Amino acid sequence: MAQDIDVLVREVGLRDGLQNLSTFVPTEAKLAWIRAEFAAGVREIEVTSFVPPKLIPQFADAEQVAQAALAMPGLTVMTLVPNLRGAERAFALGVHKVDYVVSVSRTHNLKNVRREREESLEDFKRIVAARDAAGLKGRTQLAAGLSTALGCSYEGRIAVDEVRRCAAFLAEAGAEEIMVADTVGYADPWQVREVFEAVLAETGKIPVAAHFHDTRGTGLANVAAAIECGIRRFDASLGGLGGCPFAPGASGNIVMEDLCFMLDSMGLRTGVDLGKLLDVRAIPAAHLGADSLTGALAKAGLPRHYQTAAERAAAIH
Amino acid sequence: MAQDIDVLVREVGLRDGLQNLSTFVPTEAKLAWIRAEFAAGVREIEVTSFVPPKLIPQFADAEQVAQAALAMPGLTVMTLVPNLRGAERAFALGVHKVDYVVSVSRTHNLKNVRREREESLEDFKRIVAARDAAGLKGRTQLAAGLSTALGCSYEGRIAVDEVRRCAAFLAEAGAEEIMVADTVGYADPWQVREVFEAVLAETGKIPVAAHFHDTRGTGLANVAAAIECGIRRFDASLGGLGGCPFAPGASGNIVMEDLCFMLDSMGLRTGVDLGKLLDVRAIPAAHLGADSLTGALAKAGLPRHYQTAAERAAAIH
Repeated sequence: MAQDIDVLVREVGLRDGLQNLSTFVPTEAKLAWIRAEFAAGVREIEVTSFVPPKLIPQFADAEQVAQAALAMPGLTVMTLVPNLRGAERAFALGVHKVDYVVSVSRTHNLKNVRREREESLEDFKRIVAARDAAGLKGRTQLAAGLSTALGCSYEGRIAVDEVRRCAAFLAEAGAEEIMVADTVGYADPWQVREVFEAVLAETGKIPVAAHFHDTRGTGLANVAAAIECGIRRFDASLGGLGGCPFAPGASGNIVMEDLCFMLDSMGLRTGVDLGKLLDVRAIPAAHLGADSLTGALAKAGLPRHYQTAAERAAAIH
Repeated sequence: MAQDIDVLVREVGLRDGLQNLSTFVPTEAKLAWIRAEFAAGVREIEVTSFVPPKLIPQFADAEQVAQAALAMPGLTVMTLVPNLRGAERAFALGVHKVDYVVSVSRTHNLKNVRREREESLEDFKRIVAARDAAGLKGRTQLAAGLSTALGCSYEGRIAVDEVRRCAAFLAEAGAEEIMVADTVGYADPWQVREVFEAVLAETGKIPVAAHFHDTRGTGLANVAAAIECGIRRFDASLGGLGGCPFAPGASGNIVMEDLCFMLDSMGLRTGVDLGKLLDVRAIPAAHLGADSLTGALAKAGLPRHYQTAAERAAAIH
């Protein structure tokens, strides 16, 4: 992480935000979005998913998007991979970070990738081996995500010990980042504390990131709870894009703009220019409709006389 | 506070939610809302404001609403009063709790009530004296609110020491509850901690309540931060009603339904039945339009297999 920021905010809207949308966002618009958000100060972006285009046509341009993003110096390019085959596509391009996800909920994992959770965990070892065999160790980082770690639409609450065991397995297998995800937005701040403390006890020096959804309004409260645990990496999506517009109740990731505002207001530098970030909304809005983007800061604007965390830090020194 | 709840949630939508609306909500609808929310388990409701009807026609029925609410056994009836004259109207009815508010921001106080902040603080002493002279000590509680305590649209950030001094004055003057309000939704969780710790140091055994607005998405994060400080009383409004629909950016109180869900999910009992509470939305929606109500829980519903805090507590014992 760069020395001049306190918290890494990662844009995942181009993956998690778009994967359920039937509207294909043109490749050039995706790249404009990535470029503009990078210019606003976002250092890391999950730009696409290497899933079969037949399954998710939105990502038919995965190679093109990833390649163009890799040409932006200074941007860390992450891509989701559902399996070894997807990882190989990512390795072929030399993406900076590969994001592989296992569901802690056995039922969800079965429904999602038609594999037992333990098979999916074992697959991560194969991805590590393939990365190393390709000579990419030290160049392509492997991040492992634990989805449904804070609740599952099939199973309800997930035992903390299950999360802990999966995290330990992935840490042992070589994960260079562990992402703990509240996939369906069930979490509350005290549950966040319990789960993240359990995960942190297993992961040692491996960075742990949080991926929250704001489905029931608790997204930023959960961020604040994770901050108290020492978490300094957060996924978010511009305008809270995500969820399925045809499934009432499904909702998106936490809103990137609101996340950056809250962190900055707490004095935690994200490196993101809030005004420039708000301007990026026009790009997805042009294709998805302005109504598809939510967010409180976009409506309310910055507080009067607002001083950024960086300005306040500079005033002190 | 009743023994069987951990956190008192107070509905303020009938006052803070309606005061800026041009649509007059019929008295019978206000009473239906109060009745339904009380039946859903809300124990305390700010039912109206004793302001001059010429200033806010919405509250032309203040006496009628307060009187009818007082006839509901078990409900704690609170009313806002802007000054001694308003307090006298409340005392004449014997309301359970009178809510008198001073702005910590001197500029906001001047603009709001055309008085210096120190005059407004002194007025609270006159209200205490009038309550005592009316023989209502022990029957009508006096709650004092500190508005703009976490930021002001005129002044920006407010010095914590100013909040502390106002709280100390009101505590000394006889306030039986101190409410700290983020009137314009500027606060972040760390600021909440700093301000509430300063206030709690001055207020001794007087209960302190938090009144947050969700203008910039941080409302529930601020609740969670206040919970960590030991705060156990929160204002909220059904569907987040409030703010001014004609002022872009203004937004309402934190959403009562989402607040109750988050607290309950944390294992903190509010006494509120979440399903019944969601049903109450239909009452204001019929008069203000469904679009005027927000809220994540209303859209997403409860998590699958959700167990309430009370159910979980019962399962343990």
